[in-house]
Amino acid sequence: MTIRRRQFLLAAASVSVAASGISTAEGAQKKIPLRCVGVEEHFSIPEIVAAMRSANRVYSNDLDIEYLYATAPADLAQTEAALVDFETLRLPAMDQAGVAKQVLSLTAPGVQVFKPDVALEFARLANDRVAEVVKRHPDRFAAMVALPPQDPQGAVAEMERGIQKLGFNGFIINSHTHGEYLDQAKFWPILEAAQALDRPIYIHPRSPSPAMAAPMTDYNMSGALWGFGVEAGTHAVRLIASGTLDRFPKLKVVFGHMGEAIPYWLSRLDINAVPGADSRIKNQLLPSEYFRRNLWIAVTGMPDPLVLQYCVKKIGADRILWSTDYPYAPAAPAVQLLDDAGLTDAQRELISHRNAESIFHLT
Amino acid sequence: MTIRRRQFLLAAASVSVAASGISTAEGAQKKIPLRCVGVEEHFSIPEIVAAMRSANRVYSNDLDIEYLYATAPADLAQTEAALVDFETLRLPAMDQAGVAKQVLSLTAPGVQVFKPDVALEFARLANDRVAEVVKRHPDRFAAMVALPPQDPQGAVAEMERGIQKLGFNGFIINSHTHGEYLDQAKFWPILEAAQALDRPIYIHPRSPSPAMAAPMTDYNMSGALWGFGVEAGTHAVRLIASGTLDRFPKLKVVFGHMGEAIPYWLSRLDINAVPGADSRIKNQLLPSEYFRRNLWIAVTGMPDPLVLQYCVKKIGADRILWSTDYPYAPAAPAVQLLDDAGLTDAQRELISHRNAESIFHLT
Repeated sequence: MTIRRRQFLLAAASVSVAASGISTAEGAQKKIPLRCVGVEEHFSIPEIVAAMRSANRVYSNDLDIEYLYATAPADLAQTEAALVDFETLRLPAMDQAGVAKQVLSLTAPGVQVFKPDVALEFARLANDRVAEVVKRHPDRFAAMVALPPQDPQGAVAEMERGIQKLGFNGFIINSHTHGEYLDQAKFWPILEAAQALDRPIYIHPRSPSPAMAAPMTDYNMSGALWGFGVEAGTHAVRLIASGTLDRFPKLKVVFGHMGEAIPYWLSRLDINAVPGADSRIKNQLLPSEYFRRNLWIAVTGMPDPLVLQYCVKKIGADRILWSTDYPYAPAAPAVQLLDDAGLTDAQRELISHRNAESIFHLT
Repeated sequence: MTIRRRQFLLAAASVSVAASGISTAEGAQKKIPLRCVGVEEHFSIPEIVAAMRSANRVYSNDLDIEYLYATAPADLAQTEAALVDFETLRLPAMDQAGVAKQVLSLTAPGVQVFKPDVALEFARLANDRVAEVVKRHPDRFAAMVALPPQDPQGAVAEMERGIQKLGFNGFIINSHTHGEYLDQAKFWPILEAAQALDRPIYIHPRSPSPAMAAPMTDYNMSGALWGFGVEAGTHAVRLIASGTLDRFPKLKVVFGHMGEAIPYWLSRLDINAVPGADSRIKNQLLPSEYFRRNLWIAVTGMPDPLVLQYCVKKIGADRILWSTDYPYAPAAPAVQLLDDAGLTDAQRELISHRNAESIFHLT
């Protein structure tokens, strides 16, 4: 989660053209070759936007907040406006870009920066609010359950409510919580619930946990430039090497940003994490084998046809989901990516929507 | 730098076959299609091996040491024996695998874990010792200058002596020194000297700097499995985003392990480090543009044809060097990689030796 001035302006420009009505009409006439379903599409609610600026967020030493509020005030206000909107800006932007559906998630760092009681309250509020949006536009929106990992019992109750009562389709967790990771036993009830409810956990980046952040605090490196990937990639390796994915063999986990570089490192991970080769590593399968069972990636923020080609060859088109990172990045490059990567029609169908429909149980 | 039991045993097995004399003879008759020049090939000297276990290394809180001495004693002894050998084990292993030349470097973490005065003394000793080896076998070995970044003035003097007096071909630096990185002004004299002497700096991984290490200390993640890549990759992004490569526009820097994932992240780095877009980032060129001017990668420890194919397309065959990571990994997969990646003959020539000969000024 970041505010990138240039990208936001691009997105905003595309919105304003769409809002004029002209391009929306053109969009409707234009042949849209694929049903594009985005799985990393963010929202917020005014109460959380306000609380992020207030004394409510005193739970941990959060580099995300520092990063966020280093943004120019005008850019920040524009992004906040885009986050809390659904009908005025968002639907026209989706129409303009050819996005059929967004699977909505509370924007990073979610409720993970709040004290546990406040966090649960905000998660419930955000879930209730976005449930109304999905109810109004069931053909255009689905949603992931926001939850407070710092309150595992409360999180599990909200996960069950989100799937069983509100009809949501997955869970969003923004990497570390108070410097701790999901392989740690205190969080296992959350993983158990996700497995039992048969819905994926989307592990979204946030700025690196405090015990890892220092060398990434210079040169704006703590966010999208570098720290997000280190943080979420480290989380992925912890889930693999800890044996957590053996404990929950049917757990489905999605990582954005083309898998946070894990697909690139995969052969080296396989060489250095051979099951049983070292008493410190606990995984029972090779890292690459979890990509055939537990792990998926999304194309978020990496509109690079060469990277997508590589990932299709390395982990298979059936493990790759489409996404735009709304409102932090424009959708057009992500749509274009599907045309530029030399994919077969079957691969384009899988990546643009079929994989998402399958693992999130979208209807 | 790590001791990987399985890989070491593989390497040792190949050595013992070669030492029998049978396979060496077969190797001589066998068509060796390429001149393979390895640029990440490690050695040590008995004095430094001994000092690594002694009270001499009290300079910093070094996770590398903890990682190293968690290795089974028999494996560690075997690796140490391979590191200090040149003629008995190493040359037969090179013959067996078809390695024409090794550009030797003092194994990680080099002298960076010693107090400055001890570090300089050990660097000089290692450089003197390996100079004798190169003198005995100029057709089979070249060398990089070992240096103590914690003593920049001493380092510069040793860099000049290494290139001008000893005839060396580059410099080895093992990422952070006492938690500090080469973009910091205290190290600029070292970068200035490398540029003036027109030889590359090879930035080799070591375990993550103390302020970044904590989440990577579980599950054996601090070394080759994950921490090495995070550490060296962070160093690469710091050099880019700090503008250091603009200050030293002719500096040549090599990163191993297929560029420590920087080539994979390159499109996202370009999006998030547009020159001038944010006052905190200082680079004057796009990250990808430094790959056309300052940066090279080596294939070390990543014998994955798909990754090599990707890198050839993304940064070009002229930016990729060959290496085996002796004695930590077997050479055969690195040789095989050149056949399996679907390269043109010209690309294979560049990657196997021509690029190395060019930037290291090998004769």
